[in-house]
Amino acid sequence: MKNIYAEVQYIGTNYCGFQTQKNGISIQQELTDAIFKALNEKVDIVASGRTDSGVHALGQVINFHTDTRIKSENIAKVVNKYLPYDISINYTKQVSDDFNARFSAKKKTYIYKVCTEEPNIFEKPYCLYVAQPLDLEKIKVTIKKLQGEHDFAGFMATGSQVKDTVRKIYSATVCKEENMFIFKITGNGFLYNMVRIIMGTLLDVGMGKKQPQIIDEIIKTKDRKLAGKTVIPQGLCLEKVIY
Amino acid sequence: MKNIYAEVQYIGTNYCGFQTQKNGISIQQELTDAIFKALNEKVDIVASGRTDSGVHALGQVINFHTDTRIKSENIAKVVNKYLPYDISINYTKQVSDDFNARFSAKKKTYIYKVCTEEPNIFEKPYCLYVAQPLDLEKIKVTIKKLQGEHDFAGFMATGSQVKDTVRKIYSATVCKEENMFIFKITGNGFLYNMVRIIMGTLLDVGMGKKQPQIIDEIIKTKDRKLAGKTVIPQGLCLEKVIY
Repeated sequence: MKNIYAEVQYIGTNYCGFQTQKNGISIQQELTDAIFKALNEKVDIVASGRTDSGVHALGQVINFHTDTRIKSENIAKVVNKYLPYDISINYTKQVSDDFNARFSAKKKTYIYKVCTEEPNIFEKPYCLYVAQPLDLEKIKVTIKKLQGEHDFAGFMATGSQVKDTVRKIYSATVCKEENMFIFKITGNGFLYNMVRIIMGTLLDVGMGKKQPQIIDEIIKTKDRKLAGKTVIPQGLCLEKVIY
Repeated sequence: MKNIYAEVQYIGTNYCGFQTQKNGISIQQELTDAIFKALNEKVDIVASGRTDSGVHALGQVINFHTDTRIKSENIAKVVNKYLPYDISINYTKQVSDDFNARFSAKKKTYIYKVCTEEPNIFEKPYCLYVAQPLDLEKIKVTIKKLQGEHDFAGFMATGSQVKDTVRKIYSATVCKEENMFIFKITGNGFLYNMVRIIMGTLLDVGMGKKQPQIIDEIIKTKDRKLAGKTVIPQGLCLEKVIY
């Protein structure tokens, strides 16, 4: 049996999220079905992590085991024939048998897009629209405070069962292209809704509702209530996973 | 009864085209259903023109008559509540009773996008991917030849029943943003598939398969066979209609 690594892109809009659930169609289901049609094998897909409904990916990584005789590098092309227009495998390769897309992941990068002018219909599914100006310089000062190893419990969705809430953020940046603010954050892992809660907090600072020091306070107190709200999923995109 | 003018945006990907047909869901159907839910009236929608399956719009224009007491300017907001994420009304206004979105149209502008590097999953539904370099300067020379009043019969889909094939092109331009070639063409009207056949011809010139003079020849001979192929619809977008 071969262990296949696949990098996957998808538009999350039409799906209930990565993981198969009772309601709605998942990315996982579409991938499993397409692989079944292409390889005639029912495989178990492991992903680097789940993405929520509406969240997109440019570089989600999955792995699965297969007996197929198709050359590992050609699996992407064969499976893509059976995938809908909004899911696509970038490439496939064989990896060592102990590789696990979830547990072997070292770093992940997420992008979040915020538009301060009403987005057109093409941009709308990929960004959050904020109908007021944002203070870019103040957000830059704030976002830097996230870097390093911290206890991010205050940036985790309430109800999450995770015990170890310490994560390391390698880089957190923001830039502006026309009316689009592009946030990029790389860490060794993220708690449930962590990026979206960080984003809600950064936007509060950008709108003048909070001060940059709020980050230090949330890290210190672990108080979810001090952070901003969980922003909508459609601005979020899993850009890449590093192993 | 009020005659309502509405400017509409849509992503054409999930639809069988603007016009209601036997197979698939149309933009027209979604608009009619949403207006029915919002105004409790079954209206007849007239559009500036049909767009094919997969073709997008930023500024399609429709009109319809209604007895609603809702303020004309507020109809957009009310109807938008009932539209799916990929269709949206930009604004509505009352117009004179004799206004007809199709027959009153004076000019239309279409955009066509061509990408010479493999587009990511977000760009893919909105462009044609050409896996080779294009000669921008040569295309610029060629596209200029379209301007003016000409008989465009050679750029019309075979089988079309239209008799008067003379159209006036007010402007036809191309520019390059990163790896995306953006074509923009404004005319007093377009024959069936005319923009997509023009595009196929311009790309043949850009790839070195044809010379700029081919435009003059096609206009002179009205020979569809001299023109390039009809490129895919997803690169096409109706940008605006002028009245």
